[in-house]
Amino acid sequence: MAVEQLRKSLSEGRIVIFSNQGRRRKVRPVAVGKDLRVKVNANIGTSPERVSLSAELEKLAAAVDAGTDTVMDLSTGGDIVSIRRRIIANSPVPIGTVPVYQVICESARRRKEFWRVTAEEMFAAIEQQCADGVDFITVHCGVTKKTVRALKRSKRVCGIVSRGGAFLASWIMANDKENPLYEQFDRLCEIARRYEVVLSLGDGLRPGAISDANDLAQWAELKVLGELVGRARKQGAAVMVEGPGHMLLNEIGPHINKAKKIIHEAPYYVLGPLVTDIAAGYDQISGAIGAAVAALAGADFLCYVTAAEHLRLPGTEDVYQGVIAARIAGHAADIVRNKKIRMIDYRMSVARKALDWKRQKEFALDSRAFRRAEVKKEDVCSMCGSFCAMRRMTENGI
Amino acid sequence: MAVEQLRKSLSEGRIVIFSNQGRRRKVRPVAVGKDLRVKVNANIGTSPERVSLSAELEKLAAAVDAGTDTVMDLSTGGDIVSIRRRIIANSPVPIGTVPVYQVICESARRRKEFWRVTAEEMFAAIEQQCADGVDFITVHCGVTKKTVRALKRSKRVCGIVSRGGAFLASWIMANDKENPLYEQFDRLCEIARRYEVVLSLGDGLRPGAISDANDLAQWAELKVLGELVGRARKQGAAVMVEGPGHMLLNEIGPHINKAKKIIHEAPYYVLGPLVTDIAAGYDQISGAIGAAVAALAGADFLCYVTAAEHLRLPGTEDVYQGVIAARIAGHAADIVRNKKIRMIDYRMSVARKALDWKRQKEFALDSRAFRRAEVKKEDVCSMCGSFCAMRRMTENGI
Repeated sequence: MAVEQLRKSLSEGRIVIFSNQGRRRKVRPVAVGKDLRVKVNANIGTSPERVSLSAELEKLAAAVDAGTDTVMDLSTGGDIVSIRRRIIANSPVPIGTVPVYQVICESARRRKEFWRVTAEEMFAAIEQQCADGVDFITVHCGVTKKTVRALKRSKRVCGIVSRGGAFLASWIMANDKENPLYEQFDRLCEIARRYEVVLSLGDGLRPGAISDANDLAQWAELKVLGELVGRARKQGAAVMVEGPGHMLLNEIGPHINKAKKIIHEAPYYVLGPLVTDIAAGYDQISGAIGAAVAALAGADFLCYVTAAEHLRLPGTEDVYQGVIAARIAGHAADIVRNKKIRMIDYRMSVARKALDWKRQKEFALDSRAFRRAEVKKEDVCSMCGSFCAMRRMTENGI
Repeated sequence: MAVEQLRKSLSEGRIVIFSNQGRRRKVRPVAVGKDLRVKVNANIGTSPERVSLSAELEKLAAAVDAGTDTVMDLSTGGDIVSIRRRIIANSPVPIGTVPVYQVICESARRRKEFWRVTAEEMFAAIEQQCADGVDFITVHCGVTKKTVRALKRSKRVCGIVSRGGAFLASWIMANDKENPLYEQFDRLCEIARRYEVVLSLGDGLRPGAISDANDLAQWAELKVLGELVGRARKQGAAVMVEGPGHMLLNEIGPHINKAKKIIHEAPYYVLGPLVTDIAAGYDQISGAIGAAVAALAGADFLCYVTAAEHLRLPGTEDVYQGVIAARIAGHAADIVRNKKIRMIDYRMSVARKALDWKRQKEFALDSRAFRRAEVKKEDVCSMCGSFCAMRRMTENGI
């Protein structure tokens, strides 16, 4: 992309760049948004049930090997401050976090009732994580008194499925107070600007079931997030918006179009969406279908969903496979819009027709897959062997 | 579906039923087409490089376990007549074949030049397979003198990628004669009618690369197939049409709409389509993305693509995973159109919110996936553990 165009889209807020200037580690900055290649994020992190720093560092390496653009550390188990710092130190890609998790974990560790958590504690965690060098943070600013009322009216099957969203909604209800991340949004913008951290406006009310998608609560939250995009831009803070979740296949395109308008064309960062609720164990596939359609419609950034979703904390192989699935989805949309990117598919096809296995491996989205290629005499594979259609036609000059 | 509606769509040729009345085995008949659940087919079969009857019977069992609706035996290695008969005898689901493969294999075994194969040999193989009890046969009637000329003008990257298509195109060019399956199409219809076998009009010129999709050759063949659909209906033969292949994500919907018109709303049976050329090793995912979009636009029957595509003959696990991926794609489209089918997603979501793991397993597309669920105290899973958002909100009455 031409520098001038990038600068224009940056200034309009249609592109954001992950690149916390405070951290010491060297990472390749990643830009997300208008006319750029669709990017992919992998979530890793401990849970209260599974705490192992080495396992998380392995997942980080697997995600990077699989070609992720960014990683989010969503740890909620063990010494999460130290885990985060180690992940940041080891990562060659930008790191995102959800600072409110730290507050939730600390309050649980101290056996303190969650609703006693103060606004100051929330902001302290946010500032600490920015100082630690994270590149983007999810802040659930759209979970407000008003949107929680909309949620109650929505009569959802699955209520809230976002951990941060559930915490803030409960906090609001227990204290009968407004969400500090909404009330003090300007303070959040000031911190983000100071550390050059991107605010990712979290969708705490995203649908966790097909039948909850595009309901009153989801749109009410998105409307709040759209207003906050405007405020963040005025404050000079970089901002993107998070999206669903679970959604019927035919609703995804219209949802993305409408959402992008509401959020003033800010980069839209979607989780899936999953196109069915019943594919547990295979949600990387359900998510790739939704993500491809979403990216084609204008989603800019794809958070992977792994095969472990709805079943367990993902393991290293889940992470690897999840990144690949999301990359396929992003690439499928990229090659529709970008002829330069599509050249790799063309080159792959030329290599395939020539039965040139070395070059096929080179152009493959994941060259590791070629370890399991079975190439036989005359360079044909074991699928059709000597009956290879392409070879037969090459002999005929076609 | 009401019997009257089924009868009407059958008589209009918008639905076909796989149910060869001649065979002795009992199979559940499968109907494909208008307003029906999207069906899934799994290809199995030997290749010249990999011949094992027991391996193919294992793949058959895996495909059925994974929930395939039909299986095609595409064997081209070993004693394919006996392999086919054993597969038919062992299959609880309808079986499809590509009879011309038998002719190709026999001619290769007898070291006879392929172009010496006669029309009578082709028809003999077709009749034998119908008598053996296959339920549908792929016949590449649209590869004709005219469409081969269109192919030459199309200047494709990958030429022909269909084994049957490549054989017939080469045969036509070598003999300078018309394709017997086109020239004697009425004879084909008579055989199909006599054995109550469905003719699947093969897309011998389907694109094998994104850049070859929707070209002159592909549409020229589809036009021929559309004419043959009309002729088959007049002859009282049940007929469906096969589609691609590889195709850009945004071209799939328009392609399906246009193709369904050309083929007079006959059931459309697609292979993928793959939405990128570079996902070898993961083509079950690339195929599921394309298949979901195709099914949403009106494709009736999805032929799976496995992770082995472009690399090797699929193994048992490739088959299992391939069926699941195609089923996810079909289900994603089904639940858009059919509220009854969508109820399973709703029930799954209710069970999920209740943290009822037994019922979640019951409603899952593949209950096996729940073997790897890690359910912890308080019935939460190891992903979020005690920080489960749904449980927190349930405590809040949401």
